[in-house]
Amino acid sequence: MSSSFQVFTEAGEIARKVRLGEWRAVDVVDESLRHIHAQNTQLNAFTQITEARARHEAEQIDRKIARGEDPGALAGVPFAVKNLFDVEGEVTLAGSKINRQDDPASMDATLVQRMNSAGAVLLGALNMGEYAYDFTGENIHYGPSRNPHDGSRMTGGSSGGSGAAVAGGMVPIALGSDTNGSIRVPSSLCGIFGLKPTYGRLSRAGTFPFCPSLDHVGPMARSVTDLAKVYEVLQGYDHKDPASVQRDREPVISGLDEDVAQLKIAIAGGYFRKQASTEAERAIQKVADCLGVNEEVDIAGVAQARAAAYLITNAESSNLHLERLRRYAGDYDPDVRDRMLAGTLLPASWVIQAQRFRSYYRAELQKIFAKHDLLIAPATPMTAPQIGQRSMELGGETMLVRPHLGLYTQPFSFIGLPVVVVPVSSVGTMPIGVQIIAAPWQEAKALRVARYLELSGFTSPLPQN
Amino acid sequence: MSSSFQVFTEAGEIARKVRLGEWRAVDVVDESLRHIHAQNTQLNAFTQITEARARHEAEQIDRKIARGEDPGALAGVPFAVKNLFDVEGEVTLAGSKINRQDDPASMDATLVQRMNSAGAVLLGALNMGEYAYDFTGENIHYGPSRNPHDGSRMTGGSSGGSGAAVAGGMVPIALGSDTNGSIRVPSSLCGIFGLKPTYGRLSRAGTFPFCPSLDHVGPMARSVTDLAKVYEVLQGYDHKDPASVQRDREPVISGLDEDVAQLKIAIAGGYFRKQASTEAERAIQKVADCLGVNEEVDIAGVAQARAAAYLITNAESSNLHLERLRRYAGDYDPDVRDRMLAGTLLPASWVIQAQRFRSYYRAELQKIFAKHDLLIAPATPMTAPQIGQRSMELGGETMLVRPHLGLYTQPFSFIGLPVVVVPVSSVGTMPIGVQIIAAPWQEAKALRVARYLELSGFTSPLPQN
Repeated sequence: MSSSFQVFTEAGEIARKVRLGEWRAVDVVDESLRHIHAQNTQLNAFTQITEARARHEAEQIDRKIARGEDPGALAGVPFAVKNLFDVEGEVTLAGSKINRQDDPASMDATLVQRMNSAGAVLLGALNMGEYAYDFTGENIHYGPSRNPHDGSRMTGGSSGGSGAAVAGGMVPIALGSDTNGSIRVPSSLCGIFGLKPTYGRLSRAGTFPFCPSLDHVGPMARSVTDLAKVYEVLQGYDHKDPASVQRDREPVISGLDEDVAQLKIAIAGGYFRKQASTEAERAIQKVADCLGVNEEVDIAGVAQARAAAYLITNAESSNLHLERLRRYAGDYDPDVRDRMLAGTLLPASWVIQAQRFRSYYRAELQKIFAKHDLLIAPATPMTAPQIGQRSMELGGETMLVRPHLGLYTQPFSFIGLPVVVVPVSSVGTMPIGVQIIAAPWQEAKALRVARYLELSGFTSPLPQN
Repeated sequence: MSSSFQVFTEAGEIARKVRLGEWRAVDVVDESLRHIHAQNTQLNAFTQITEARARHEAEQIDRKIARGEDPGALAGVPFAVKNLFDVEGEVTLAGSKINRQDDPASMDATLVQRMNSAGAVLLGALNMGEYAYDFTGENIHYGPSRNPHDGSRMTGGSSGGSGAAVAGGMVPIALGSDTNGSIRVPSSLCGIFGLKPTYGRLSRAGTFPFCPSLDHVGPMARSVTDLAKVYEVLQGYDHKDPASVQRDREPVISGLDEDVAQLKIAIAGGYFRKQASTEAERAIQKVADCLGVNEEVDIAGVAQARAAAYLITNAESSNLHLERLRRYAGDYDPDVRDRMLAGTLLPASWVIQAQRFRSYYRAELQKIFAKHDLLIAPATPMTAPQIGQRSMELGGETMLVRPHLGLYTQPFSFIGLPVVVVPVSSVGTMPIGVQIIAAPWQEAKALRVARYLELSGFTSPLPQN
C-alpha cells in the first residue's frame, strides 16, 4: 500500500489517504525516515530523529483507523520541530552546546501536543542558529543546515533546519520560530511557504525563549493549503504562554479560494526597495503584476523600527542569558556571545525609547491598514548566500550577512503583524520569497492571496532529489 | 438661596440641590471661590484658580436648569485637577518651573471634558510634586501644599494640592494621578477617600506623563458615594490614551450598599506589617475588626515588586525627560533631577529584569485573588510627617521620607490593581488611610467595602475650619 507514498507528497494528501485507509501511517513514517536518513548527511536538517516515537505514534493512528475512530485532520502527516520546541525525553538544544547539560524535556511543547492530537507524527527536532540569534542557518556546534536547492548555500535562519527539512522533502510540515524573521528568512531562501502569525496567536509554551516580547512560533510548508491546515490545528488560547490572546479560532481553509479581487493591496515602497537585489525586485514585480497591484506606500520610520527591534532583541535576550553568559561564555558561538555581551551593557534609556517608538510605529501601520488590506515586500534582500559568506553588497553598501538578512522582516515582526511568505521562482536561479503582510489577526487574508499566487503557478518549484 | 450651601457639602448633595433648583450653581461657585481664596494662602493647594471659566460654566448650568434641560449628574459640583491635567488656556505646569515656558493647553484633558459634560464646574489646577516624582506634596518652585489637619505637616504627594483642596473643603472632588501611590499617599495623609482604578480604566489623554507603563489617573473625594459618582462619570474608552482598554462601563453606585458579608477579605501580611508604625497597625486592626477579617496572606516578592516599580519609573521617566534634562537640568528640583540623571544611566538589563518580574508577580497576585476578593493593607507606613522632614524611622530603620512614603502603595500599582483608600481616624492624631485592593476591574467590590467602613462611622473626620 505504501508504495504510492512519495516524499514531497502534500500533508493534506497524506492525511486524506491515511484517513481513507489507502496508506498506512507506519509506511509513511518508514518511507519518510528512509528519506531523512539518506538526506540528512547532506542537508544537516535534523539534530534528533525520534524514530521510536514516530513509529509508535504511527501505529496508534493506524489502530484508530482500524477501530473506525477519527484519527484527526492531519492523520499520519510527518512533521518535525525546530530544536527549541520541547519534545518529551529529548534535550531542548535551542541550537546550543550549553543546553546539552540540561535535563530532557518532561513534556511536549503545546504546539507539539496539538499536532499530535490532530494525528500528525513527530519525526524529530531540527537544526537552528544558536539560541535563535541568527539569520543564516549556520551553527558552529552542529554544522550549517544546507539549502536543498544548492548544498553550498545557506538555508537562512534561525529556523534553518526547518527550511531544509521541508524544502528537501524530509517532512511536509515543520514548526519554526520567528523573533525578527527566523521563519520568513529560511522560507524565502529555501523556496517554501511560511507563516509568522500575529503576536499572541500561537502558543509558545514549552519553547526555549529568545526575546519574549517579540517571539512568535509558526508553521512552514510546501503549499498554502498545508500551511492553512496546520495553522487551524495550532490555534487556540493557552494560559501557559503569557502572551497568548483569548480569541476565537480563525477558520482559514474554507475561505482560501475566495476571490482576491476586492482586496486592497499595495507594495511597501521606500526602505523596502532601496537595497533590494535584482532578484528581490523581480519577485516583487512578478507578484505585483499577478495581483494587478500598482500602488506603492511609504511607511514612516521603517529604519528606526528595525533599529528598535534590534535593540529590544539585544536587551531582552542578553537579560535572559545573563547567568549563562557569566558561567559559560566560552561555550557560545562568538557571534552570538558578542551580541549578547553588548546587550548587557545597553542603557535602559535606549530600550525604553525603542519601546516608545513601537507605539508610534504601530499607529503608523494602523493608518495604512485603514486603507489597505495587505502589503507586499521582499522577504529577504537577496537569494541564499554561500555558506560561510560573511558580508554582502546591498544597494552599494557592504554589510554583514548574519544580522542583515532580516532587513525586510524585522520591521513587521516588531509590531507583531501576521505575514505569509510566498516563494517565487526565477528560472535558473535560487528561490526568493515575498512577504504578504496583513493587519493584526488578518492571517486569513494573507493566506488567501498566497493561495492565489500559488495557483497562478509561478511559485518556486522544489528540487526533486 | 445659596445661603444654605456650605463648604464640605458632599458633591452628591450639591448636585441634588442644584438639579432641583434649590441652589444656583453660580452661588455654589462664588462661595467655593471665597473659601478657596481664604484658605489657599495657608494650604497652598491651588496654583491656578479658573474663576472666569468657573462662573461661565456655572451660569451655563443654571441656564440649562432654567430651560428644563438635564444639567448632568454632577450639576454645579465644583472640582479641581492636579496641574498635570490639560486645562484649555492654562499652562500645564506638572509642578515644574520648566513647563512655564510651554504654550497654554489648546484643549481640556479627556477627564476634564467628562466632568464638564456631567455638569461639574472646574475651579482650577492644583499644586503637586515636581513632574509627579514625589510622595511628599512639597514643591521647591510653588511651595509645599499643607495638610488641613495640621498646617505644619505634609499633605503627601505627588497629588498634594488635590489632597489639601478636598480635605480643606475647597472642592468636594479633585482629580489626581497615581504612578506609584500619588493618589493614595495624599488620600491617606489628608484623611480622604481616593480611587486608583485598574490600569487602563480611566483615560490619561491630555495629562503630562511621568511613566507611561505605570501612570494612572483617578478621583479623590470626601465620601465613597462621591467617589463612586465621579468614577461613573469618568469611565469609558478613549482612543487618545494608548493604554485605554475597551470595556463596558462599570456601574458602581447601585451596588454600593450591598452586603459585604460574602466578600472574602484578607490582610496583606509580611512586608506590609513589618515596618508599619503603631498608627498604621492600629488602622489595619480597626478595619479588620470592623469587617471581621482574621486571615492574613503573604504575597511572594513584594519587596522585589517595589524595587522593580522603582526601576521602571526611574528608567521611563528619565527617558521622557532626556531632552529637558540636557537643556534645563538647573531648573529641576535637585531631588528630582538626581533621580532622573541616575535613571539615564540604568542598564537595560535591570529594567528588562524588572519587566519580567512583573509577569511573575502578576501571576502570584492572581493566585491570591482566585481565593480572595479583596486585600487590606496600610496606605502609608505612618501619618503625615512634618514639612521639610527628610528622614523617618520605620521598623528600626532610618530612611528617606520622599521615596519611602510609597512603601505600601508601589507593590499594587506596579501591576495596575484597583485600590480604594479609606481614611481612618485616630482620636487626637493625624488621619491615616487603609488600602482596599481588588483584582483587576473589580473596583466595585473595593468601593462597596469602603462604603461599609464609612457607614461604620470610624473613618476620619475632617477639620471644619
